[in-house]
Amino acid sequence: MKFCNVCGGSINRLIPKGDNRERYVCSDEACGEIHYQNPRIITGCLPIYKEQILLCRRAIEPRLGLWTLPAGFLENQETTQQGAERESLEEANANLDIKELYTIFDIPHINQVYFFYRAELLDTDFSPGIESLDVKLFKKEDIPWDELAFPAIKKTLEYYIEDSAKQQFKFRSAILEPSIAR
Amino acid sequence: MKFCNVCGGSINRLIPKGDNRERYVCSDEACGEIHYQNPRIITGCLPIYKEQILLCRRAIEPRLGLWTLPAGFLENQETTQQGAERESLEEANANLDIKELYTIFDIPHINQVYFFYRAELLDTDFSPGIESLDVKLFKKEDIPWDELAFPAIKKTLEYYIEDSAKQQFKFRSAILEPSIAR
Repeated sequence: MKFCNVCGGSINRLIPKGDNRERYVCSDEACGEIHYQNPRIITGCLPIYKEQILLCRRAIEPRLGLWTLPAGFLENQETTQQGAERESLEEANANLDIKELYTIFDIPHINQVYFFYRAELLDTDFSPGIESLDVKLFKKEDIPWDELAFPAIKKTLEYYIEDSAKQQFKFRSAILEPSIAR
Repeated sequence: MKFCNVCGGSINRLIPKGDNRERYVCSDEACGEIHYQNPRIITGCLPIYKEQILLCRRAIEPRLGLWTLPAGFLENQETTQQGAERESLEEANANLDIKELYTIFDIPHINQVYFFYRAELLDTDFSPGIESLDVKLFKKEDIPWDELAFPAIKKTLEYYIEDSAKQQFKFRSAILEPSIAR
């Protein structure tokens, strides 16, 4: 960040009065806007159709060509559930019945918090959206573990395998550290 | 937002190619930076000491003078739990043992998502931080229901009252609509 988006002035990196960490602060005294930066939320879902899991093969970077659950940045004015639904439509044209919140992951080193909802895929009338090369149902034993795009996807699928064996799904939250999350 | 924080160019409001909603986009062709805006996370906790609840009286706007649970914006590079701990220290100098994630609220009309952790207050050696006028333990029957700062605080306290009667605390998530959340 080099310029203030309010007045166009140059930006300094400093600790504002009464604060305790460095921020991007406008150098123009009359403006002085503080530009806070905060973590972003990624929201998605785990779409299940007769015990099979819907995965999307990424058509975009990062992790182009790897498999993911439908997910993306939460937008202003929407709930995490609406965001999960929207991403599933955009990436897989998937018609879903969204169930309860299933997993949350803190990934502090990349300033992200993930939300995944359990979802029932209502029909097999899905297809790749513009961000997907392919969309496919996977049986549990066929999950492409070595070709998953992100650690949060792997963790959510691991929890699902564990919980579906007992047919008892419980909410989980976890921290993904760099060693796991990279 | 009037100026691009990357190049200082002027900003247009338009739907970028391949996108489906209006963004702030740099008008300088060589730059063209898209400035996304996303919801922010507020993280806090519900500090309990021998069945009493620690509340802070706000020394800052909004809702100056009203009672709140310690909470604030999640910072980059921290987990939601670390943020909850930090806010409790900053607002109440409270020594806590943070337990599990207790409530999550989507508040889409103000682009916020709230997290509250259950926490055990370890001692009564707390005091108002710079953002608090007062910090006090409240018995359940003494909660100042009409002087609570935010709907997410009220909801979390309601859940606590309900769950503590059964001594069984379960994770809850809810959407706070404008009629409730204002």
